Amino acid sequence: MKVAGKYYRTIWIKPDDPAAVQVIDQRRLPHEFAVLDLQTVEDFRRAIKDMIVRGAGLIGATAGYGMYIAALTADRGSFEEDVRRAGEVLTATRPTASNLAWAVKRQLFAMARAGTIPEKIETAFQTACAIADEDAEFCRRIGEQGLKLIRDISAAKNGEPVNILTHCNAGWLAFVDYGSATAPIYAAHEAGIKVHVWVDETRPRSQGASLTAWELGQQGVDHHLVADNTGGHLMQHGMVDLVLVGTDRTTRTGDVANKIGTYLKALAAQDNGIPFYVALPSSSFDFEMDDGLRQIPIEERDEEEVRYVTGKAKNGSIAEVLVCPEATRAKNYGFDVTPARLVTGLICERGICKATENGILGLFPEHRRPA
Amino acid sequence: MKVAGKYYRTIWIKPDDPAAVQVIDQRRLPHEFAVLDLQTVEDFRRAIKDMIVRGAGLIGATAGYGMYIAALTADRGSFEEDVRRAGEVLTATRPTASNLAWAVKRQLFAMARAGTIPEKIETAFQTACAIADEDAEFCRRIGEQGLKLIRDISAAKNGEPVNILTHCNAGWLAFVDYGSATAPIYAAHEAGIKVHVWVDETRPRSQGASLTAWELGQQGVDHHLVADNTGGHLMQHGMVDLVLVGTDRTTRTGDVANKIGTYLKALAAQDNGIPFYVALPSSSFDFEMDDGLRQIPIEERDEEEVRYVTGKAKNGSIAEVLVCPEATRAKNYGFDVTPARLVTGLICERGICKATENGILGLFPEHRRPA
Repeated sequence: MKVAGKYYRTIWIKPDDPAAVQVIDQRRLPHEFAVLDLQTVEDFRRAIKDMIVRGAGLIGATAGYGMYIAALTADRGSFEEDVRRAGEVLTATRPTASNLAWAVKRQLFAMARAGTIPEKIETAFQTACAIADEDAEFCRRIGEQGLKLIRDISAAKNGEPVNILTHCNAGWLAFVDYGSATAPIYAAHEAGIKVHVWVDETRPRSQGASLTAWELGQQGVDHHLVADNTGGHLMQHGMVDLVLVGTDRTTRTGDVANKIGTYLKALAAQDNGIPFYVALPSSSFDFEMDDGLRQIPIEERDEEEVRYVTGKAKNGSIAEVLVCPEATRAKNYGFDVTPARLVTGLICERGICKATENGILGLFPEHRRPA
Repeated sequence: MKVAGKYYRTIWIKPDDPAAVQVIDQRRLPHEFAVLDLQTVEDFRRAIKDMIVRGAGLIGATAGYGMYIAALTADRGSFEEDVRRAGEVLTATRPTASNLAWAVKRQLFAMARAGTIPEKIETAFQTACAIADEDAEFCRRIGEQGLKLIRDISAAKNGEPVNILTHCNAGWLAFVDYGSATAPIYAAHEAGIKVHVWVDETRPRSQGASLTAWELGQQGVDHHLVADNTGGHLMQHGMVDLVLVGTDRTTRTGDVANKIGTYLKALAAQDNGIPFYVALPSSSFDFEMDDGLRQIPIEERDEEEVRYVTGKAKNGSIAEVLVCPEATRAKNYGFDVTPARLVTGLICERGICKATENGILGLFPEHRRPA
């Protein structure tokens, strides 16, 4: 997508230096646009752990490139062991994200089938690029699929703006390009359909305020920022036509783990008869899991993220302010699980399906279990 | 309640100066405890409008004292007109708060029945004190009523801590003393029952983080701060036994206007079979209204409250930080309405009732409409 009119992905091989990968430092958005070099496994670990990069697809792509750098920098004498350990280190950074383990496993599998160490490195490079390219392509197709939904709502409203509420950032910054939840929005905007987006702030890390509002602004999509508390009121008063969110992991039965607070919006959507859709590439499915509430591990993050808010101070510097008494303790659960019963449908690269095992396996029959 | 061990109300006549009223400047909490003098109608208008004072009961008490100061400072030649206009000015400050208009009307009614201007001023003084005293006494009784609920849950859990989630600040800072939602918590704490409170941050103004966490800390009640997004996850995982909130206005049919986001917690409570109670003194009922969603006016506040977060900077000063791009616009609805069907019960000074017209009028039969 575009930043100040120039085309970017969120991760790429550094021009003229195939031993380095570059990413946008998302911790400094929206106030500063900065690009960082990643050259060691530790760089990649820190980039994911500290949320320099974040979001389902981008975490997967970063893990893919990280495994390539792991292969490139591994000791020839302990290549297999070094690469395996790098995979463990990367997988442990963010427990809820499905794409992370998926990308690491795909790299290990691909390298295992290659012959010599130089061939393994070349394979890891090709696989990393393929993971990134597929992510972008899958998001583009999610946009095509979701566009139909938005077009129908627009037609039913006689061309009045379609009001879409989204939570957190399932935008192009969370993927390699286009985004998941934003892909249909960008596709609709490009097709000339009037859309207006309600952007949930998404405390504690405010990814809606700092990332989604920023990228929608860069693409020229009409939007308003709202506190996370606001969505229910908007839905009660006819100000939301569609809720569209992403996911960090979705079970084969359609339970959706996504940023904490998603479940509350799903409840409000159901209570007000508003369609609630989840957009995801197939890499965000966990086909091993049947029960999201019991099985998906929920990351608990540092309480300081709740106690402090980061933003731009009056003097232009990036500053943190404490919002509670010094002595107050906080709890910081990163995700919640929206049960499949609250999900109207899933928008995937192959089409839109119901959030049920039958619906999902109808699109992805290769994941049917042997009878 | 206590601040650093010393007993305070939230509003009082200035010692040795009956022409001034003192309040705690709540905008500076939790980082600074400061007391402000209010001596003119304009001081009172600004105190309510700028949220130096806020909260259902305290707004009512402030309006009560404000009408006394209005009488005291009115021109003798245009006394009636000055006082009436002061009432209009104060009533217009916060459209959603029920106690505000109630206190102003009560003062106008009381003064109308008094004889001379000095008698009217004396009546206004007595009425202001009575409104404050009743508010404190009603909250104390709400504590007694709600204590039974908490005691029962504690017994059912064999004395394990009772986990209570609350939203915004319906604490003693929102009233003259004790608070509404906090009164049962303080009563339970005093009775030696183990309680633990989940404190919603309550963006955009963060009254949970800055006020509720502060006052619970001052009274020594165990608690954790959480982002507003967190309550659903806590309820899904058995970490909440009771949701207890206040209200700015409740209809005769039990629809509850309260801080934006309350409705989302009520939905989650219902979805997880968790009791959802609203604590309120009778002054927060609007017995004229039958349909909260259609009839209760919802205050829309300045978008800057959403775009900025206020807190304590590293250097100890109070600072604002911008959490979104400079160009991003925001919408800021202050309240939402929780339909009566989601409310398990109302805890009032006279007892606990169902959130239905029959339930409410059972406690307050004087508001029955003539057949």
